[in-house]
Amino acid sequence: MRIGQGFDAHRFAAPGSDRPLRLACLAWEGVGIEGDSDGDVAAHALIDALMSAAGLGDIGSLFGVGAASQGAGMQGDTMLRRTVAHLADHGAVPVSASVVVVGNRPKIGPRRREAAEALSRAVGCPVSLTATTTDRMGFTGSGEGIAAIANALVRMV
Amino acid sequence: MRIGQGFDAHRFAAPGSDRPLRLACLAWEGVGIEGDSDGDVAAHALIDALMSAAGLGDIGSLFGVGAASQGAGMQGDTMLRRTVAHLADHGAVPVSASVVVVGNRPKIGPRRREAAEALSRAVGCPVSLTATTTDRMGFTGSGEGIAAIANALVRMV
Amino acid sequence: MRIGQGFDAHRFAAPGSDRPLRLACLAWEGVGIEGDSDGDVAAHALIDALMSAAGLGDIGSLFGVGAASQGAGMQGDTMLRRTVAHLADHGAVPVSASVVVVGNRPKIGPRRREAAEALSRAVGCPVSLTATTTDRMGFTGSGEGIAAIANALVRMV
Ligand SMILES: [Zn+2]
Ligand SMILES: [Zn+2]
Ligand SMILES: [Zn+2]
Repeated sequence: MRIGQGFDAHRFAAPGSDRPLRLACLAWEGVGIEGDSDGDVAAHALIDALMSAAGLGDIGSLFGVGAASQGAGMQGDTMLRRTVAHLADHGAVPVSASVVVVGNRPKIGPRRREAAEALSRAVGCPVSLTATTTDRMGFTGSGEGIAAIANALVRMV
Repeated sequence: MRIGQGFDAHRFAAPGSDRPLRLACLAWEGVGIEGDSDGDVAAHALIDALMSAAGLGDIGSLFGVGAASQGAGMQGDTMLRRTVAHLADHGAVPVSASVVVVGNRPKIGPRRREAAEALSRAVGCPVSLTATTTDRMGFTGSGEGIAAIANALVRMV
Repeated sequence: MRIGQGFDAHRFAAPGSDRPLRLACLAWEGVGIEGDSDGDVAAHALIDALMSAAGLGDIGSLFGVGAASQGAGMQGDTMLRRTVAHLADHGAVPVSASVVVVGNRPKIGPRRREAAEALSRAVGCPVSLTATTTDRMGFTGSGEGIAAIANALVRMV
């Protein structure tokens, strides 16, 4: 059994931007998140936690870094599924994972269960999602950006 | 075996406030922490880690959100015990948990063991507590607020 | 099996400082990190995660706090090895650990594998390393400082 830690943070797009908001493999109302891919910090933090637990590097090892990367424009759901397939190729099976989203929006509560189910389907094991704010403090509290902290357990077979 | 991640952050009350300071199920000297309940970020981050690991949602799923919530004014100790009872109702038993408090005060060191024991009694398994600062950087370093990061292992029976 | 969480953050030394940059048990180009010891946030966060998982307190319990501490000037590698020896004295064996470095520099990617190997050798179990930025937000995004979040699994024998 191996453990992994993941973290990701992205800036919200400028007000008026037509960039869609994607988080935890779902589409949400409101202005989106910047980033090479769809800016889904929950998916990205989970990918780092899973890759770490399996000892396979990080999200950049699999998808590359920057605008020219394979991940450019790719959705969190697709990236998570490719990550799990990559783990399987190396004898690593996700057992359990969890992610906390830190930010002012979107309001996760009403769709928390739906988001956790989408993440769990993508990873193929129970994945939990929680959400919290930083009480108007720091870059997540000012609304400048959004962050996610994740952990994962992986079994080597 | 399932893993959970938790995070919480709250603002310190204004200087001169008579709000008591409660953290990690203990009372401390100094001005307290804002929040619907007693503002115990260590307890709250642990609750999210435990609820996540058990796949039962988050602190808001159990105690509600906002001033009208069941958690309003409730102490961390009481909330942790209710969380563990809720987990037991769903066949989930805490195995181990850990929480890091990030902030300038209170000074945890001299009472670290006492606080870890209080948390462990409330959760019914070994719970560790560490504390660190952010070297005068960010909202925890300026003294504006306090944060906690927690993880937990839960066994499904 | 027990779980631990760790976090650490330090300020970068002023431009022009000749303080060397040490991180994840390696030496890097560029101005170093402030701190009593070598300022290796990855090693320090891992030490807290390991100490927590073993229920042995935190980095301050083992090395002391402040400039007069045993850790003053000590390198992360040495501190990690002493931590693991201390765990062994108390019947705790590291099983798996993971750390995320959050900051603008150094660029971890090209030496990620080398750093993970150095950490794994020091801890005596698989240790993964990932790195990310906060998109120019907060104290890690401004370049003011660097942070690390770690977790660990420990077996009690
Ligand atoms: Zn990302
Ligand atoms: Zn709270
Ligand atoms: Zn340190």
